[in-house]
Amino acid sequence: MSISDGFLHPDRLFPPEPALRNIARDLYATVRDLPIVSPHGHTDPAWFADDEPFEDAASLLVTPDHYLFRMLHSAGVPHAALGLPRLDGTAPQVDGRAIWRVFAEHYHIFAGTPSRLWVDHAMSAVLGCPEPLTPANADGLYDHIGEQLGRPEFRPRALFSRFGMETIATTEGALDPLDHHRKLLADGWIGRVRTTYRPDAVTDPEAPGFAENLQCLGEITDTDTASWDGMIEAHRRRRAFFREHGATATDHGAPSAQTADLPLPEKQRLLDMALKGALTPTEAELFRGQMLTEMAGLSAEDGMTMQIHAGSRRSTDRALLSTYGPNMGADIPARADWVGGLDALLNRHGHASGLRIILFTLDESTYARELAPMAGHWPCLLIGPPWWFHDSPNGIRRYLDQVVETAGFANLAGFNDDTRALLSIPARHDVWRREVCGFLARMTAEHRMDGAEAEKIATELCYGLAKRAYRL
Amino acid sequence: MSISDGFLHPDRLFPPEPALRNIARDLYATVRDLPIVSPHGHTDPAWFADDEPFEDAASLLVTPDHYLFRMLHSAGVPHAALGLPRLDGTAPQVDGRAIWRVFAEHYHIFAGTPSRLWVDHAMSAVLGCPEPLTPANADGLYDHIGEQLGRPEFRPRALFSRFGMETIATTEGALDPLDHHRKLLADGWIGRVRTTYRPDAVTDPEAPGFAENLQCLGEITDTDTASWDGMIEAHRRRRAFFREHGATATDHGAPSAQTADLPLPEKQRLLDMALKGALTPTEAELFRGQMLTEMAGLSAEDGMTMQIHAGSRRSTDRALLSTYGPNMGADIPARADWVGGLDALLNRHGHASGLRIILFTLDESTYARELAPMAGHWPCLLIGPPWWFHDSPNGIRRYLDQVVETAGFANLAGFNDDTRALLSIPARHDVWRREVCGFLARMTAEHRMDGAEAEKIATELCYGLAKRAYRL
Amino acid sequence: MSISDGFLHPDRLFPPEPALRNIARDLYATVRDLPIVSPHGHTDPAWFADDEPFEDAASLLVTPDHYLFRMLHSAGVPHAALGLPRLDGTAPQVDGRAIWRVFAEHYHIFAGTPSRLWVDHAMSAVLGCPEPLTPANADGLYDHIGEQLGRPEFRPRALFSRFGMETIATTEGALDPLDHHRKLLADGWIGRVRTTYRPDAVTDPEAPGFAENLQCLGEITDTDTASWDGMIEAHRRRRAFFREHGATATDHGAPSAQTADLPLPEKQRLLDMALKGALTPTEAELFRGQMLTEMAGLSAEDGMTMQIHAGSRRSTDRALLSTYGPNMGADIPARADWVGGLDALLNRHGHASGLRIILFTLDESTYARELAPMAGHWPCLLIGPPWWFHDSPNGIRRYLDQVVETAGFANLAGFNDDTRALLSIPARHDVWRREVCGFLARMTAEHRMDGAEAEKIATELCYGLAKRAYRL
Repeated sequence: MSISDGFLHPDRLFPPEPALRNIARDLYATVRDLPIVSPHGHTDPAWFADDEPFEDAASLLVTPDHYLFRMLHSAGVPHAALGLPRLDGTAPQVDGRAIWRVFAEHYHIFAGTPSRLWVDHAMSAVLGCPEPLTPANADGLYDHIGEQLGRPEFRPRALFSRFGMETIATTEGALDPLDHHRKLLADGWIGRVRTTYRPDAVTDPEAPGFAENLQCLGEITDTDTASWDGMIEAHRRRRAFFREHGATATDHGAPSAQTADLPLPEKQRLLDMALKGALTPTEAELFRGQMLTEMAGLSAEDGMTMQIHAGSRRSTDRALLSTYGPNMGADIPARADWVGGLDALLNRHGHASGLRIILFTLDESTYARELAPMAGHWPCLLIGPPWWFHDSPNGIRRYLDQVVETAGFANLAGFNDDTRALLSIPARHDVWRREVCGFLARMTAEHRMDGAEAEKIATELCYGLAKRAYRL
Repeated sequence: MSISDGFLHPDRLFPPEPALRNIARDLYATVRDLPIVSPHGHTDPAWFADDEPFEDAASLLVTPDHYLFRMLHSAGVPHAALGLPRLDGTAPQVDGRAIWRVFAEHYHIFAGTPSRLWVDHAMSAVLGCPEPLTPANADGLYDHIGEQLGRPEFRPRALFSRFGMETIATTEGALDPLDHHRKLLADGWIGRVRTTYRPDAVTDPEAPGFAENLQCLGEITDTDTASWDGMIEAHRRRRAFFREHGATATDHGAPSAQTADLPLPEKQRLLDMALKGALTPTEAELFRGQMLTEMAGLSAEDGMTMQIHAGSRRSTDRALLSTYGPNMGADIPARADWVGGLDALLNRHGHASGLRIILFTLDESTYARELAPMAGHWPCLLIGPPWWFHDSPNGIRRYLDQVVETAGFANLAGFNDDTRALLSIPARHDVWRREVCGFLARMTAEHRMDGAEAEKIATELCYGLAKRAYRL
Repeated sequence: MSISDGFLHPDRLFPPEPALRNIARDLYATVRDLPIVSPHGHTDPAWFADDEPFEDAASLLVTPDHYLFRMLHSAGVPHAALGLPRLDGTAPQVDGRAIWRVFAEHYHIFAGTPSRLWVDHAMSAVLGCPEPLTPANADGLYDHIGEQLGRPEFRPRALFSRFGMETIATTEGALDPLDHHRKLLADGWIGRVRTTYRPDAVTDPEAPGFAENLQCLGEITDTDTASWDGMIEAHRRRRAFFREHGATATDHGAPSAQTADLPLPEKQRLLDMALKGALTPTEAELFRGQMLTEMAGLSAEDGMTMQIHAGSRRSTDRALLSTYGPNMGADIPARADWVGGLDALLNRHGHASGLRIILFTLDESTYARELAPMAGHWPCLLIGPPWWFHDSPNGIRRYLDQVVETAGFANLAGFNDDTRALLSIPARHDVWRREVCGFLARMTAEHRMDGAEAEKIATELCYGLAKRAYRL
């Protein structure tokens, strides 16, 4: 990365013990400037397609970040004070500066959290703020950031280059027309930016508008999605369309890792019922599980890497959901059963040549108990990096501590930042790189590997593994 | 705390790495003499009301402490050898000195456990013993402690002052007449000592004598507890009575975190059945769950902080239960489901203004997966400190490691000692303070916060958070 | 151990912080040469009975080790390339050197895993290889090892002595004729080598050939195994036969820790159905659970230590199972419920005098939540060392971190290596000893115990506890 540390300490996150710190520093020197590969995330493709300047500090850093507004909410800040838009289309009139001041007043509650690291990094290393945010300097920093954002080097494509990014994947629903990616294709930017096939709206019968979604999928792919085979064919075609726009991967969010492998008549029966909205919750789970198995089958055919993000209970705060909609910070992890859940899928497709499936968990108790032993056996399985609440310094330490001994390094998928916040991308990769170096420093200092091996593995973890996992 | 270290090493529990140890020492200097706030525990209010001297070392330190006699039992020491009273009223005649000798002979089995730290601290820092207990010095130390206990400065109120305590809460059942607290009120000691409203005997239909208990509650509150609304009114009045005796909090023990939000006719039906003793286990769970929701509603009304201690399987050794009764060391934690369990309660009352609920878990796998994300969203939720078996140096380390990054510090409830053992109170708070300083020392040494911020947070964790969590 | 470090660093695995490392080194000096007690494992008794030389590096180190071939498989190496025999009796013709080369080409994938430590140790400290395996030196090392294996000091009995082994237990099924142990008895080697009673094939009604197995058990014990009491008597007699061949323990593998305590008619009904192969999966679980309780009853009678290894989902890759059979690396841990599971057994036999039961888990979330509190109460329970995937440096750290504070050291069963790989035995005990010293070094440096206490506990953990746990 060609960005400086600014007000951040150059040794941040390294182990403080001198012997370890020195090794970590040396390792970090070999990985800090590797290109950023960001194979999974939720940035807005319009940024890269249109390359318009960002507006202000609040709308850039605060209001799109559910890590931030969930904590502000827990501290008693009403969503209205942040001007967040409601489902009914109304939004309180709060100007950016007022939002920024509220954020500054509460910035201390982020002490010890990764949000603090990411925001500090964005403000310091990217936006050139001279010191961390406080209530006293809020106005000044707001103005400073506003000025910066008006300059050409803060437009999205310039940031892409400045961050040393090699490629970034966005995530679009199966029905998305990919207009922005079409423009990126025309501009020769596909490859640097890619889409990812995320079909939840047409694979989850409990998704809003499921029947209409599926009909729409049939129309745009010229298939009959009321028949099971037709529906699978529709996915096959739509995946090809996504691949034309750079996609090398699919992504699947599910409340659990449950999969199924049913006979065709039973699948058709489930589809019939799903289209009528007549599935029980258990049948809906079965439908989703069958669709995961189907998607693995298609990945075995077309070579797209399959990502499974399972185990979040979505929208547990129903008043919030009805007023503000989903993704407002009330999604909470649940226990996961990966061994039982993936049984059907793996026994159907687990030996398919070239199949690659990356598993992301929110239940850390499955790292050592389930994911590492599974990835240490099945050739198709890779363990994704720590996800969501666990993408933090201590979260990364627990992850490496618990997966490496049983899965080795080669069964990991490297890092991905999974973010909506463009400016946090270098920060997140930097945290991963520092933690990787800290982990390997201890391995080296304990004489479990030598320095040359640690360097190779660090490079793999920060660059090579992600490229191979996603076929980039 | 105005008590010395005695034979304890002044650097105990601090990280041994010199750079970390120095930071931890400095932080500890700022918190070691903060007043002790003990907002939840099980000390005997008679001690403070009557201020009588304690009897001897065995009855003070050994026989009331189930942490100790459970381990002695696991090592083959029969309960009879400790003179523990049986349910039938008989108790083997064992004099204090004999019990003390048995304890001394087995004291080595506590190596590495927090009991060892607490007992060593009580003997050294409080009772002035010159060295740790051994079989060889058991008699001498028994005599020494006996002499000390006869002196006025070892009476309960003197210890309260000497320990630097600002306030302590005891825990009484809803039907308790609070005689001791009435005396404390007359003596001007309410505020220093408080009660806590623990209504399990009238909220758990599987509690012994449930129907009689509920009738008794009706009588003392002049309500009809055979009707649902009357029963709730009875709680409302009884809570007010407890508040007159210093209570700012309620406490609820439950095998699981299951809650419910049923319509009134269903609630009345459950109550009718409960009074007849005719609930199935599932219905009993539902009744308990509904009562948790009702209690949250009352807390939203009257401002009492609600504590939920969930997840212990009580009395798993049934022979022990039938001979010695409950609380004999055979309560073992179970898996918990906080997200699913609290769903009904939170969606009913989770946004009530001023509501405060503190969650205590015995399932550490829920720290990062459930409790931290929940507390990081819901304004009413705070995470209680490590509880029971996890209130230990390594237990505290795992807790801070797993909750802070996702919940921040402001969503924690500080520390409480939850003890029956008066003399262990300074030891337990001291362990917490040392561990907090160790944790923050590493955060500082890794440049995740600066020294001034660490000092503020240490003070919060050791004093401020507990006061605000319990409105003290 | 009288074996040198070879190319291994003498400080491997010790904490790198100088203060901790020095303490760890001193502690290690007191335990490194203690005799090896190996009370549970799966070495081949024919080795010790026949004392024949091993063949070559591949058949000695690679092909019998499912830790190795599972990882090779996950990296895409087909089982055929390792010459692994199929269920149908065929085996691809691959010579040892070719297998060894494949292993060498992939040896880098074991970086960070315990397999790497074990293989490096065997090659260096035992086989005298001058450097770690690489593709470049594969042929040379293959030849070197081949030469070594031809020398008398590399025969099994010589290795037994050279490793400083005091005793090793193998594991045999209840129907095994114990021919090798009979020879060992004749040679005066029983005591050094022992068998262990593993009756799964006659206690699990879902085991292949269950009815025939049970009939066979009846024949060799002259009992009627179609009646419940007769079947129990058959076990009683067979256990006595095993004790004549050195057994002091039994071992039980089960998918879960579920136990039962049923009335005799219900037990007989289950047995009748089991012999007909007519049990439902739930009833089969009940049968297995009842048999665990029966085995505890027999242990209470005859003093054999009972080992329960629960929580593995066996053969999750069914294509692999049908081609290669079980134990091919696709056994994956599952969540465990020890508290609920053992309830029936413990409430039946938990207070039996002299009963000793060692629990082994693959669900680390049960260490602190269930196993440590249970062992800290029940006199009969001991916690077994980290098992299978968790028998690694970090796995041992998590184990000690999570069990010691609640169970103390005296409720642990010391170490056992549980291996099929003779040459890994010194390596595995050495890893345990180093980790124990590292753990106690930190306890000492944090002033939670003094050096003399740490030395005693280290000796217990590396020697004394295992001897007492298994009555050796």
